[in-house]
Amino acid sequence: MNYAMLVYILGSVLKIEGVFLTLPTVIAFFYGERSLVAFLITMILCLAIGIGATWKKPDNTVFYSKEGFLAVSLSWVFLSIFGCIPFVLSGDIPSFTDALFETISGFTTTGASILSDVEALSKSGLFWRSFTHWLGGMGVLVFILAVLPMAGGRHMYLMKAESPGPSVSKLVPRVKQTARILYAIYFVMTVAQIILLLLGGMPVFDAVTLSMGTAGTGGFGVRNDSVGSYTPYMRNVITVFMILFGINFNIYYLFLCKKWRQALRSEEVRMYFGIIILAIVMITYNVRNFFPNGREAFQQAAFQVASIMTSTGYSTVDFGKWPILSQTILLMLMFVGACAGSTGGGIKVSRVLLMIKSVKRELHIIVHPRARMKIKMDDRVVEGDTLRSVNVFIGCYLLIFAVSLLCISVDDFDFTTNFTAITATINNIGPGLGQVGPAGNFGGYSGFSKYVIMFDMLVGRLEIFPMMALFLPQTWRRR
Amino acid sequence: MNYAMLVYILGSVLKIEGVFLTLPTVIAFFYGERSLVAFLITMILCLAIGIGATWKKPDNTVFYSKEGFLAVSLSWVFLSIFGCIPFVLSGDIPSFTDALFETISGFTTTGASILSDVEALSKSGLFWRSFTHWLGGMGVLVFILAVLPMAGGRHMYLMKAESPGPSVSKLVPRVKQTARILYAIYFVMTVAQIILLLLGGMPVFDAVTLSMGTAGTGGFGVRNDSVGSYTPYMRNVITVFMILFGINFNIYYLFLCKKWRQALRSEEVRMYFGIIILAIVMITYNVRNFFPNGREAFQQAAFQVASIMTSTGYSTVDFGKWPILSQTILLMLMFVGACAGSTGGGIKVSRVLLMIKSVKRELHIIVHPRARMKIKMDDRVVEGDTLRSVNVFIGCYLLIFAVSLLCISVDDFDFTTNFTAITATINNIGPGLGQVGPAGNFGGYSGFSKYVIMFDMLVGRLEIFPMMALFLPQTWRRR
Repeated sequence: MNYAMLVYILGSVLKIEGVFLTLPTVIAFFYGERSLVAFLITMILCLAIGIGATWKKPDNTVFYSKEGFLAVSLSWVFLSIFGCIPFVLSGDIPSFTDALFETISGFTTTGASILSDVEALSKSGLFWRSFTHWLGGMGVLVFILAVLPMAGGRHMYLMKAESPGPSVSKLVPRVKQTARILYAIYFVMTVAQIILLLLGGMPVFDAVTLSMGTAGTGGFGVRNDSVGSYTPYMRNVITVFMILFGINFNIYYLFLCKKWRQALRSEEVRMYFGIIILAIVMITYNVRNFFPNGREAFQQAAFQVASIMTSTGYSTVDFGKWPILSQTILLMLMFVGACAGSTGGGIKVSRVLLMIKSVKRELHIIVHPRARMKIKMDDRVVEGDTLRSVNVFIGCYLLIFAVSLLCISVDDFDFTTNFTAITATINNIGPGLGQVGPAGNFGGYSGFSKYVIMFDMLVGRLEIFPMMALFLPQTWRRR
Repeated sequence: MNYAMLVYILGSVLKIEGVFLTLPTVIAFFYGERSLVAFLITMILCLAIGIGATWKKPDNTVFYSKEGFLAVSLSWVFLSIFGCIPFVLSGDIPSFTDALFETISGFTTTGASILSDVEALSKSGLFWRSFTHWLGGMGVLVFILAVLPMAGGRHMYLMKAESPGPSVSKLVPRVKQTARILYAIYFVMTVAQIILLLLGGMPVFDAVTLSMGTAGTGGFGVRNDSVGSYTPYMRNVITVFMILFGINFNIYYLFLCKKWRQALRSEEVRMYFGIIILAIVMITYNVRNFFPNGREAFQQAAFQVASIMTSTGYSTVDFGKWPILSQTILLMLMFVGACAGSTGGGIKVSRVLLMIKSVKRELHIIVHPRARMKIKMDDRVVEGDTLRSVNVFIGCYLLIFAVSLLCISVDDFDFTTNFTAITATINNIGPGLGQVGPAGNFGGYSGFSKYVIMFDMLVGRLEIFPMMALFLPQTWRRR
């Protein structure tokens, strides 16, 4: 382990966090809120530590896979610990555990909250909550790669560890350029959503925060009923953008390069839209009697499917009151999740697709034992290593899920609540069913359970292995 | 597909079923029950069709993997369809769907019932229900392999498709001998349990039926409260035998060959006992206030853990009233299941062990990307094919689980009931939680849902692939 490099990267992360904190500080000043001091103190703290730690570039910039994993997981832990300080200092969320929960939920774009009254928060606090979604969506280290000059040529390891999906495809040969293109697309799309919401008459503050929450597929709202009280037009704009942010960003790059055919042929994106359409049709039919007309039922179903499938977690109605079939469909979508390379969470469509292809191949082998069949995706043969890593991912995911479920069962909530609490957080959705449904929150869990859930949110966002590497003694060994 | 061989094997299966049906027929005669006629008719039907279909041995005895899979899955379907006729004809279970459900639940050693009043059944019906457990536990085709002279030397495919676990180890070079040794151990252990129960003063009928249900890890009882009203001694005998029948039978063979050291070193069996002990300790502590003293709490916890872990499904108390932690532990045990090569169901301890080992290896690769680490079990390297097949098994298992859950959600039962209904049947346990808990039954589900659950029980018992092969067009193609 190259500790000097680790300290340097963590320092850069804190420095950037300090810079980011200027935004909520300005907003606190603008609205004349007393949380101004809290944000100022945290900002100075982050900048001081960050600048101190990055004062001198390490001589030894050797940086491999394990350094990458550790740097990413520790960065996210540090980001969250420092990011929650303003909530505690300002009194918005006095308990450290709760503030940390809310911040991790923000950065991991989960959107699970311990708050029952969101509207009681300061404007600057609400903004910071939503801003963490936006940063967490595309990744803070990817941002650093895009803007900071970094030593050595091994940034791929950082990007690999922070980007979701079974494999990272570099858009262009240089990591720095790839990171810049990704952030540019991300920024432009967010702005487009803000403009469309403003055109519909949404207040600026709401438009900005909700768009950041949509872009990062987070789900923190600024009203107690989430997105329930906005106009149908606004709801539909959000529906469309949630679906857009759940698509693999490579597709947008292909569009920019005018490689239309290649973009439209992506098997993952086709399956993603296939599942969304199927789910909307089924739920619309299933909830048709809950709404005055078919159009309203369709729009509500579409909103909810988009929100859950992309792991955003906004809600307009309490789907906990819908028929069990609709609830079960939504629950399954939580596991599937969005496309790899998007800002969404879950197992990812491409992993599910590879799983289905593996099953098909196995059945083929039963019938033709001597046949050797390669698994292909988008006309390319999938490497054995990728398949193995998908399988191990699923295995590890199930083990962590099981252990977490067992841990939070100590609190004696009902099974549906516990099961969906883990589902909604390890997949970075937000609301589950039962007491953690759209009308409830995670505040009732004990401190112990909250820490288990925080771990799960990080495990979900960073796709398991970086977080697991934290617990391996070998990771920490000096070379 | 060699259809002539397929018909021959299905004929043999029906012939054997006809022979087995003499036992309940004799019991119906002994108790002077009117179900006598029903059993006689079914017996004659099975024998007539069976003898007709096996009159002439096929000329072409070519028999490969796909014939093996299809023969096994169709055998089980036929066994169940003919096996349910006595229930319908005698009026014990007038509905065909319900009778088929009960019979599939019997043969697959699930023990899930649609009956609310078991004691209303005829003695011969109760006996047949428990006898199907005993036959299904070790496998009907394995029985045929043991007793009938079969053409060709490719019986391994049949055994492979019917025996649970990621790989079949032949005890001795010849399949016939292996099948005989397995059934001999199985028979002797069942008789031992019957004797021990009789020594404790249990009525003969109860001792025989409960022992058959224990041996097959089935779970059908002959009283409405399952095993609740027997003495603590009887309960403890059943506890011990449930655990014994959940062990890989190879271990008993090693004991018989006096290979103590090899037997005691089995990693799967060690993990099996490790999980059982851990679960008993945790649940005993968790339910200590539900019972008058610690000893009673321990015995009840041990009974329930043994019953669920081995996928038997007997119950003494309604564990649906225990704290959620205990319920969640039991639910996890349902997924883990018993050892491979035992009569128990679930994912199997060896598969879980291989999953954990794969995760460990993956983490090792992260830290040492160039290292190549082999996965070992019992000091032997696990083949890549076995690992792949375990992974695909888990993937396919999850997909079937998800689709089944979605299907039965149409009935609008609560999520806990639906989720545990699938868990308890695809893992061949019996009772779940909620309305399908130890105090409830599966009778409330619609016909459609019952057929979905029947499919899941067969999928669970035959370990997925034989049942999936049924739906592949290629399987049915002539060579």
